Amino acid sequence: MSKGGVFVVSGPSGSGKDTVLSALFSACPELAFSISSITRAMRPGEREGEKYNFISREKFEEMIKNDLLLEHNLFVGNYYGTPRKPVEKAVSEGRDIIIEVDVNGAAQIRRRLPEAVTVFIMPPSFEELKRRLEGRGTESEEFIGKRLESALNEIKRAAEYDYIIVNDDVAAAADSLLSVIKSCRLKTERQKNIINEVLSKC
Amino acid sequence: MSKGGVFVVSGPSGSGKDTVLSALFSACPELAFSISSITRAMRPGEREGEKYNFISREKFEEMIKNDLLLEHNLFVGNYYGTPRKPVEKAVSEGRDIIIEVDVNGAAQIRRRLPEAVTVFIMPPSFEELKRRLEGRGTESEEFIGKRLESALNEIKRAAEYDYIIVNDDVAAAADSLLSVIKSCRLKTERQKNIINEVLSKC
Repeated sequence: MSKGGVFVVSGPSGSGKDTVLSALFSACPELAFSISSITRAMRPGEREGEKYNFISREKFEEMIKNDLLLEHNLFVGNYYGTPRKPVEKAVSEGRDIIIEVDVNGAAQIRRRLPEAVTVFIMPPSFEELKRRLEGRGTESEEFIGKRLESALNEIKRAAEYDYIIVNDDVAAAADSLLSVIKSCRLKTERQKNIINEVLSKC
Repeated sequence: MSKGGVFVVSGPSGSGKDTVLSALFSACPELAFSISSITRAMRPGEREGEKYNFISREKFEEMIKNDLLLEHNLFVGNYYGTPRKPVEKAVSEGRDIIIEVDVNGAAQIRRRLPEAVTVFIMPPSFEELKRRLEGRGTESEEFIGKRLESALNEIKRAAEYDYIIVNDDVAAAADSLLSVIKSCRLKTERQKNIINEVLSKC
């Protein structure tokens, strides 16, 4: 059986990455999603094992020590990381898996798994990025300014990615992401079985 | 404006490549198709400028001399080749272009245009390949045997291609080919404008 592919998806606040990923998973429930391990407290509306596994700081540091993370990051006093084993399991079972991480996490994964395919979700314009960040309407101007700065810093690193998908329409962006995943399934290194199969019969 | 991509599509007799390409062009009339220059006589049902430009041997040899062909081949006394200029024109206009050639032509194009994306259309099995070649029902056993041998020789070189699409269903195979084309449009080297555009405003 052919191995699955690892797809690393990043995108700043305001790129609409989460909505695009939701649309992708609705269309392709067979895709695996990498659940991050994090040490911060659970927030209202979050559920254990949905997007995150909430674990203790001690357990996280144990995972670092035992090389059980593909990437990790310390952010405002809390650890965030991608456990290695579920990714390896999906790949060996022939399932494609999506890992949602920021530009730093993506850079770490690229070093560990050079075969990972990396995709950056872009807002369609600076104006639209600003509008989306302001549009939430619940945060201070200072907070919005910081988010904008952080988004622009991520966008500066978009060229490190294999693919860039501009999200001006969620359905189209999810379809684009699906094209990337589908095309990777068709790459010759994942299709060698069929050549051997046809030739073995003659 | 971003450049167009060059997509080289090959597939042996019995792969159903022509039907897959027809389905692709029906779905995507914006795609350009490279018209081959050939020196053989026009056959019933063929039209000048549709799939081929029918030219004289002298004119063809002139094209070879002036380096106006991306690839060419002499087959049963006739020349077949891919003119370079229409491909360069499509690419510079930002249009994706499909070049349909055999494994030898594809190898020549790969050397001339390393950025070309190459796709091999495969029959789903040896049995199905045999069935399709026999199925025409109009040819001698010897002729079918030769076609099968030639198809298997092409399949032996399928691993030289970037992508392999198994054609067990024409619509699905055309959709796969479209995924390859779409995903190439999303490659970072074709998307750098958007990064610059967003960052230039801030």
